[in-house]
Amino acid sequence: MSRRTFVPVTPSANIGVVGLAVMGSNLARNLASREGNTVAVFNRSPERTQTLTGEHPEAGFVASESYDDFVASLAKPRTAIIMVQAGKGTDAVISELVSRFEPGDIIVDGGNANFHDTIRREAEISPTGIHFVGTGISGGEEGALNGPSIMPGGSVESYETLGPILASIAAVAEGEPCVTHVGTDGAGHFVKMVHNGIEYADMQLIAEAYDLIRQGTGKSPAEIAEIFAEWNTGELESYLIEITAEVLRQTDAATGLPLVDVILDEAGAKGTGAWTVQNALDLGVPTSGIAEAVFARSLSSKRAQREASVDLPGPSTEWSVAGAEADAFIEDVRRALYASKIIAYSQGFDEIVAGAEQYGWDVKKGDIAKIWRAGCIIRARFLNRIAEAYADDPSLVALVVAPYFRDAVAGTQEAWRRVVAIAAQAGIPTPAFSSSLAYYDGLRAPRLPAALIQGQRDFFGAHTYMRVDKPGVFHTLWSGDRSEIETTPSSH
Amino acid sequence: MSRRTFVPVTPSANIGVVGLAVMGSNLARNLASREGNTVAVFNRSPERTQTLTGEHPEAGFVASESYDDFVASLAKPRTAIIMVQAGKGTDAVISELVSRFEPGDIIVDGGNANFHDTIRREAEISPTGIHFVGTGISGGEEGALNGPSIMPGGSVESYETLGPILASIAAVAEGEPCVTHVGTDGAGHFVKMVHNGIEYADMQLIAEAYDLIRQGTGKSPAEIAEIFAEWNTGELESYLIEITAEVLRQTDAATGLPLVDVILDEAGAKGTGAWTVQNALDLGVPTSGIAEAVFARSLSSKRAQREASVDLPGPSTEWSVAGAEADAFIEDVRRALYASKIIAYSQGFDEIVAGAEQYGWDVKKGDIAKIWRAGCIIRARFLNRIAEAYADDPSLVALVVAPYFRDAVAGTQEAWRRVVAIAAQAGIPTPAFSSSLAYYDGLRAPRLPAALIQGQRDFFGAHTYMRVDKPGVFHTLWSGDRSEIETTPSSH
Repeated sequence: MSRRTFVPVTPSANIGVVGLAVMGSNLARNLASREGNTVAVFNRSPERTQTLTGEHPEAGFVASESYDDFVASLAKPRTAIIMVQAGKGTDAVISELVSRFEPGDIIVDGGNANFHDTIRREAEISPTGIHFVGTGISGGEEGALNGPSIMPGGSVESYETLGPILASIAAVAEGEPCVTHVGTDGAGHFVKMVHNGIEYADMQLIAEAYDLIRQGTGKSPAEIAEIFAEWNTGELESYLIEITAEVLRQTDAATGLPLVDVILDEAGAKGTGAWTVQNALDLGVPTSGIAEAVFARSLSSKRAQREASVDLPGPSTEWSVAGAEADAFIEDVRRALYASKIIAYSQGFDEIVAGAEQYGWDVKKGDIAKIWRAGCIIRARFLNRIAEAYADDPSLVALVVAPYFRDAVAGTQEAWRRVVAIAAQAGIPTPAFSSSLAYYDGLRAPRLPAALIQGQRDFFGAHTYMRVDKPGVFHTLWSGDRSEIETTPSSH
Repeated sequence: MSRRTFVPVTPSANIGVVGLAVMGSNLARNLASREGNTVAVFNRSPERTQTLTGEHPEAGFVASESYDDFVASLAKPRTAIIMVQAGKGTDAVISELVSRFEPGDIIVDGGNANFHDTIRREAEISPTGIHFVGTGISGGEEGALNGPSIMPGGSVESYETLGPILASIAAVAEGEPCVTHVGTDGAGHFVKMVHNGIEYADMQLIAEAYDLIRQGTGKSPAEIAEIFAEWNTGELESYLIEITAEVLRQTDAATGLPLVDVILDEAGAKGTGAWTVQNALDLGVPTSGIAEAVFARSLSSKRAQREASVDLPGPSTEWSVAGAEADAFIEDVRRALYASKIIAYSQGFDEIVAGAEQYGWDVKKGDIAKIWRAGCIIRARFLNRIAEAYADDPSLVALVVAPYFRDAVAGTQEAWRRVVAIAAQAGIPTPAFSSSLAYYDGLRAPRLPAALIQGQRDFFGAHTYMRVDKPGVFHTLWSGDRSEIETTPSSH
């Protein structure tokens, strides 16, 4: 308890970490392992601090048992990264730090905060002169230790101090550290949220590809693992494809069965996927692929409904393929996966663009693609193509119309159509594949039946419509003589 | 300005209406036309009040130019329905009434409030002893005048006074007024929100059916109007199918073209569809059909993206049907529409069930189906089947497994599959048809690839998984020797 015996009070650390659960401990170790960093650490219960410092004497941690000592151990500008459970815990730690920090010091929230909270906190703290930076950190426990992808928001000024520290620990892709100043206040947590939303879509698409191959060809998980390993040498190369092969290859020691057949088929979720879709709805951005992925997880965990539905009628004929037909089908699935994945990213980047506009962030789309190339869960070769697309045309209206992606879809769309058609007829659920294709066909449709919807809305609610041939707002007197009048937009 | 010359101050009215735009005026006229009601009216700008009372002397309105006089004109328990734009306007009116009302009086918000606001307002007002009732009112302007479907929340006690008044003006279905006490506080606005979400799905499904027939058979809107009129004599009979025929039949006077071809194909939205999906995400309920419908509208209004995408590659061969094949296709589309519609309602009722559980409302599902049978936009013959299903089994876990709906899907699912397959191959966007089918196939799947997703999550984030063969929570040491350990659920 006596601070004299436990910590030095000379301000020797250039960075501190508060919260030493696995993510915080690993991030602190990562920081300590990079030249130039001296890392102060603090945890509410000192046992964790003692464990960390005891197990890692090489890190040279400056450990404290009180906020007073922790803050005293930080050199100015004091910079501390909070790694605690998002929510009230974060607010409590922030308040401890704010009461001890001085203007110019920097508080970093490295948890998975909702960006609305980050905007609120930044607005509350900035009048004190203390910088508050919400930052996304992706890569899980291993990324935290060896190099995550880092998405900081906050002020430009804070990034002058914080940027080099984060760059020292970030993953490196083609020589570039996977960190960039995303934008002010909540921009970092917003972009991390969309990253997670894309991750949901990507995982669901992979799961559908696996299911189609399994049900269509009867191949074993181990055989399908080899297919994914093969895919991982081509344009689909990515961390998620790589680990899919690892998971499918795994045998359960207890039963000798493939592990994937022993795992209960109810997918959990931590909420960032749902946030991505909820905010897309606020922003009016269609992110149907992400929505289907989130809903597919929630459907999977509706045990009572699924049990009651298991004998609902399905196709009258069984469908399967073998031999060369199976090989062709697998290649179709690969192409469908690639095309659907392009749509998922296109929708995700649309949300980033819309969020940046709504909240006033100067987000560089190409830089986001670049910092996702390593360290994070959705890291993939294909992110270089996205970075190039935005470098070629910073005002690109949709990823899918960039030349590279247009060509990619041109080469895959017929296969994509075959796969969605087969899934529908075979009774294999492919919500993300089919939703992505429907979105694609909606985007390229010269006319959409939205015109009929506008007619219906005008009929029952006098919601008015616009015309293709002249400006103005119109209403048909449906319950009168059915003539058309020019009007002002309805307010209800 | 002198109240003496403008209104009587004897409390003669049993019900009052504040806010006399079209919806409020029509509701006031509806109230005044029913025996036993004397209706007090008030509007912030008195011109509207004067117009209403001047045009409708037969209504015997008790008009006021101030809140003081309006409140004085109401007999106890004072009961006033607020019909103003949702949001701050509502709060302002509430505050005027609260400061003048007494314990036992009733304030009704009849606008399209977000149910979270209704819960908040009820909690703020109930300590005063005044009842606050949020009520959904569906049916548009015409419904307000001639008989809407009414979904009141609030206290049971308030419904003793309010119920008979609302019953006097509600639409009538098979002799029963379309009003019921939905549940306490925000229940009425919640159920109205879901009603609107289902409406979005229903309209999108109809739009897809129209688009498929138009593109597949080349029939004109007028010809397709006849198909919808015919459908309206069968199991699809509903207000939305009926007005679809009316809209498609309409010729634009200026051009001689079908009106639907002259209307700009960008669908507007007022937000309740998005709310339905956002709350479904909070509640963990898959409402994919509603989500796709909301996103289809937002996609339609992305003009720059659509223009840039119009030459994205589509199917290499054109698809169309004629003669008997066209007739068979149209019947397939009808069946696909019916099956998809069952899913949309099943998902919507799932959200009501989940909301009732989350917020502590005793919602009677069958009664909700009954009050939607007339007056509201989604009124349909098929709601009788829903009411029966919940009457037969109040704890039904999903609408689609009730015998009637199971049979309905059995008779339609092969056609549904053909339609989704054709749309995918023909390049016609059917996001709601295909999403509903994928949901259906997900529900009935004995195994879902969610197991693979759990394996991936355990690999990259140590999120753990459950097993099919024993209880407990497990983790594979993926970066260790890949043995399995029993653990506690991950907290990150």
